[in-house]
Order: sequence, then structure tokens, then C-alpha cells
Amino acid sequence: MQAIMADSKGQLTWQEVTDVAPREGEVLIKVSAAGVNRADLLQAAGKYPPPPGASEIIGLEVSGTVARLGDGVTGWDAEQPVCALLAGGGYAEYVAVPAEQVMPIPETVELHEAAALPEVACTVWSNLVMTAGLRAGQLVLVHGGASGIGTHAIQVAGALGNRVAVTAGAKNKLELCAELGAEITIGYRDEDFVERVRTESGGAGADVILDIMGASYLDRNIDALAPDGRLVIIGMQGGIKGELNIAKLLGKRAGVIATALRSRPVSGPGSKADIVTEVVANVWPMIADGQVRPIIGAEFGIEQAGAAHELLESGEVSGKVVLRVAD
Amino acid sequence: MQAIMADSKGQLTWQEVTDVAPREGEVLIKVSAAGVNRADLLQAAGKYPPPPGASEIIGLEVSGTVARLGDGVTGWDAEQPVCALLAGGGYAEYVAVPAEQVMPIPETVELHEAAALPEVACTVWSNLVMTAGLRAGQLVLVHGGASGIGTHAIQVAGALGNRVAVTAGAKNKLELCAELGAEITIGYRDEDFVERVRTESGGAGADVILDIMGASYLDRNIDALAPDGRLVIIGMQGGIKGELNIAKLLGKRAGVIATALRSRPVSGPGSKADIVTEVVANVWPMIADGQVRPIIGAEFGIEQAGAAHELLESGEVSGKVVLRVAD
Repeated sequence: MQAIMADSKGQLTWQEVTDVAPREGEVLIKVSAAGVNRADLLQAAGKYPPPPGASEIIGLEVSGTVARLGDGVTGWDAEQPVCALLAGGGYAEYVAVPAEQVMPIPETVELHEAAALPEVACTVWSNLVMTAGLRAGQLVLVHGGASGIGTHAIQVAGALGNRVAVTAGAKNKLELCAELGAEITIGYRDEDFVERVRTESGGAGADVILDIMGASYLDRNIDALAPDGRLVIIGMQGGIKGELNIAKLLGKRAGVIATALRSRPVSGPGSKADIVTEVVANVWPMIADGQVRPIIGAEFGIEQAGAAHELLESGEVSGKVVLRVAD
Repeated sequence: MQAIMADSKGQLTWQEVTDVAPREGEVLIKVSAAGVNRADLLQAAGKYPPPPGASEIIGLEVSGTVARLGDGVTGWDAEQPVCALLAGGGYAEYVAVPAEQVMPIPETVELHEAAALPEVACTVWSNLVMTAGLRAGQLVLVHGGASGIGTHAIQVAGALGNRVAVTAGAKNKLELCAELGAEITIGYRDEDFVERVRTESGGAGADVILDIMGASYLDRNIDALAPDGRLVIIGMQGGIKGELNIAKLLGKRAGVIATALRSRPVSGPGSKADIVTEVVANVWPMIADGQVRPIIGAEFGIEQAGAAHELLESGEVSGKVVLRVAD
């Protein structure tokens, strides 16, 4: 089969590789499209090795059709349209994935569009709901509101009955966030998000903050949290080590939790299987209802994976970037 | 009525004060005994003012009998033995408390002993179970294992089916912890708790850590956490500001949460009412069964409140310190 391989300089080439076969408990998917993630950029640069046992091929999510079932797998039919959360291997004609990570395609979504869903849907649901305990009537602050994760988080938090605040840089990004339902849009270059969130919440702050900056926003994020609030950190674009003021946290009974999806176990507590099950039960109906839709900012052919990575790296795109592997 | 008042030098005197009466929704309790808490020491020293609306009199928990019901209160009988979690006012002959914070006395517990229960039971259950999500089969690390909270946490975590590790200084304190069911006892003066917890858990670490040190233990506590672990900080005896390594946290999908009981609202989400309800439903049966018992290290007459504070401050006592107000 063909797949994208990174050379030692990080150059991505679509080339012949060894065929992949489903092991026991796995589903082999004929890939239609693959989603591009920030972790893919790190992996191509040699900075984010795949977890033990995962494919060396880049790619954390795909859509496609069921090609073959490994031993012990039931519940999926040949040629059935599916999408899947991967530990790797998505930038390829075929990928084998544990059956627990395979999802049906939500009604109303085209096959290739569904490649834009697994990572954002699993990341947003697991962090906002399963980790931070978001419930209706709260205020959610999403940093990087126009990103793939941000655009999905706005819609899901809104569908759950919450007010949403976002930060972003460019004006067109803030406008997109507003279209998707963000009530409070904050241009981080001109405005202090702590002040703005406090003002918009009568001084209370945000109940849940979904953060991609890490250290550089740590103290201000805690300032922007409401009593009993939760700061969930899923990216460290602003650094790894920051000063934590425990007294501030204690005064609000607040928490800081950092998470990642890729390193989670396939099954058991806190696993990918748990998250996938909740996403299909809760988020797919929101998509079928039209309350949530995939936001795709750019599509490339798989041979153009390098260009797709450059675009994501540049920060000049809103929503997801998707690679078409087959029609 | 008589109550303890602190003068400007922090001297505590049992003296005549204005009688207290139950407001709407409150229960007036004739106090039998009051528990002593570290927050009382801070308040006597002028460092921990009571929250708005709370009594100026020191004291966060009592046992006693129902003296009178405020308007709108039902479900309690005159002279019924009760104990209660307070926002203040416990070092007195009478205290008025919102009905939501009143609890029956668990079977098998003497009236005056029950004064040692509300703070430890509400603190331990709310932090280990409601905040950290502790479930059976996990490993819990309790710092200050011989303290009032520590001795209760060991027993409750054990009754829930968990292994318990503790830290303490003196040998007799570690022995008490072992008697109460702690499997792993760590003398913090001689041993590295991170190493020990890792060794005892096959490298995994503790699923839940209940911490009273704050900044000085922050980084090592995170080192000692297991994947998906939660560090819950309820004291800052080792300082307020510490460096947080977010990458370590993210690598474990772990969280740091700091909490306090006194500042919680009476009712609503995360309230004292919620906690009290869960404690009566879950912890009181453990006490009735004999799985959990109040651990009282010292008892004083209420006139000796100053001496009781000195003893707690000295760190020379294990378990709770209780003040007898009436027979």
C-alpha cells in the first residue's frame, strides 16, 4: 500500500510501504480521508514519537470504509462507512485500528468530512464533560477558538446549554467563532481575557477553561476561573513550567488538569473506548440534529501532506485541515 | 450565654456574650463538645477572618442536642442528639446553624465524641470521593496521616477498598496509622515518599494524594501521582507558590485541585448540604459498622481552649482535639 513517510529532514513523501493487516480485535479501514493534527507536525519533526506498539506512520484520525475484520471483531460490516480515532497510521491507504476506536459516520456528514471529527469530538467531550464536569448553564472559555478543537468546542458547549467565550487573534477568526455560537469573542492581541471574562460573568469567571497555551496563561487562567472552576490544559504552546499560586486555587476550590488523548489506554477507566462510546452517544446526535457540524478550513490531496502541515503550522487556517486519500 | 472570645493578643477567654437565636432555616444546638481545627488557630491569631455572615466566635464543628428550630425547619426533634458542620460559633454554649449542616449522631458514637466528626468526615469524603473520584482498588497517599483528617482518611479510604500510604514524622504516629489500616507508612524525615510510593505500586504511583503542604510538596506530589491521578491540596503548611511542570501533569493526564470546606455555599452544587448528605449516607454506616471510628487524641474543658490550641499547634497530638462544653 501507499503511505506518507517522513524522512530525517521531516520531508513528507507518499510512497510504497508494507501492507498493514488487522490483528485480533482490530478493524482494517480503507482510508477515504485523514485529519491533520498539531501532534502530526511534531511527529514529522521527530519531536513526538508514537506510543509503544503504534504505527510509525503519521495520522491520528481517518474516515473510510471497513475493509476487513480481525479475529474476534463483530458489529461492523464490510464496506460500512466509519471513522476512527488512531494512535497513528492514518496518512495511508489502509489503517488497522482497535475496534473500540471505530465509530459510525454521523448522519448528514459526508464520508471525507468525517475525517475531521474523531480527534476534535473525543478531545472536546472528554475534556469538557468527562474531565471538567461541564453541565448546562455554565460559562466556558475556549482559547484558540477558531482552531479545529476550538470550533468544535464552541458548538458542543453551546448545544449543552452553555455560554461560550473564546480567544483568537485575527478578526475573521473571531467572526467565525461568533457564527458558531460564541457569545463573547476576545481578540487576545488587544484585550485582557481575564478582565473581559469577569465583566461578562458579573465577576464570577469561567466555570471551565479549555487551554492550549500552558505555562504562559497559567496564572491568568486561574484568575479567570469561577469558584469550583476547572482549567483543562491540552496544549503547551506557551511553555511547560509556570508558577502555580495554590492559595488562589484554594480560594476558588478550583483545579488544573492536563490531559492528552493519544496516550490513553484502549480500554478500561479513562480509556479511548469510554470516550468513543460517550461521543457516539452524545455528540453524534448533536451532529445529526444540525446543532454541530464539522468545520473544515482546508482540504489537500494526500500527496500534499507537507503543504497541509505548513498551513496548519502557519496559523492561517480556521477549523480542521483534511487530507483526501481516496474518492 | 458563655463563649470563647479571642482578644487582640489571641488570648482565649470563656466569657459572657450575647445569646444566639436561630434565624429562618437554622437549628439552635445546645453544645456538648466542639472540635478544634487548624483554622481555629489561624482565626484566633487574626489570620483567618470568618466568612461574611458567619459568627465571630471561633469553632467549625460541634455535637450537642437540638434546643430550638428556626422558622421553616422540620425533621429535627427537641433534645435530639446531633452534630453539625459550622462556618463559625462552635466554642459556645449554643450555636445556630443552617439545617442543611446538621447531622444525626452515628450509632455507636458518644455525644461528645461526635464533635470530632463533622470536619474530618466532610473534608475526607468531599475531597477523596466527590472531588478526586476515588473508587475501590486504588492507592491513596495521605500526608500527615496521624492528624485528625489523616486518621479519618486512612479508615474511610480503607473501608472503600483501597490501599493507603501515609507520611508522618514520629514513630508513634506511623504506628497509629498502621493500626488504622495504612499499609505503607513513610517517615518523611528519613524516607523519600516519591520513591517509596512508586516502589510499593510497581512504578505506577498514587491514584489520589491528599496533601496539606502545598508548594513545598507540589512537584514531588506530581512525581508520586499515577496516570489519571488527582492531587488534592487542603493545606499550605509548606507555602503558597510552587512551580508547576505542566508537561509532567499532561504526561499522566493528572490534575491538581485545591479545596476548602468553610467557604462553600450552604446549598447548591458543591455545597455543604451536598457534602453533608453524602457523608450521612456513606460514612455514618461505616461508623455504625465499626469500620471507621472517631480518633480523639486529647480532650480539654472549654475554658482550656488556649491550651488545646497550643497542643494542636505543637504537632504533638495524633487525631482530633475536642473541647467539652457541657456533660
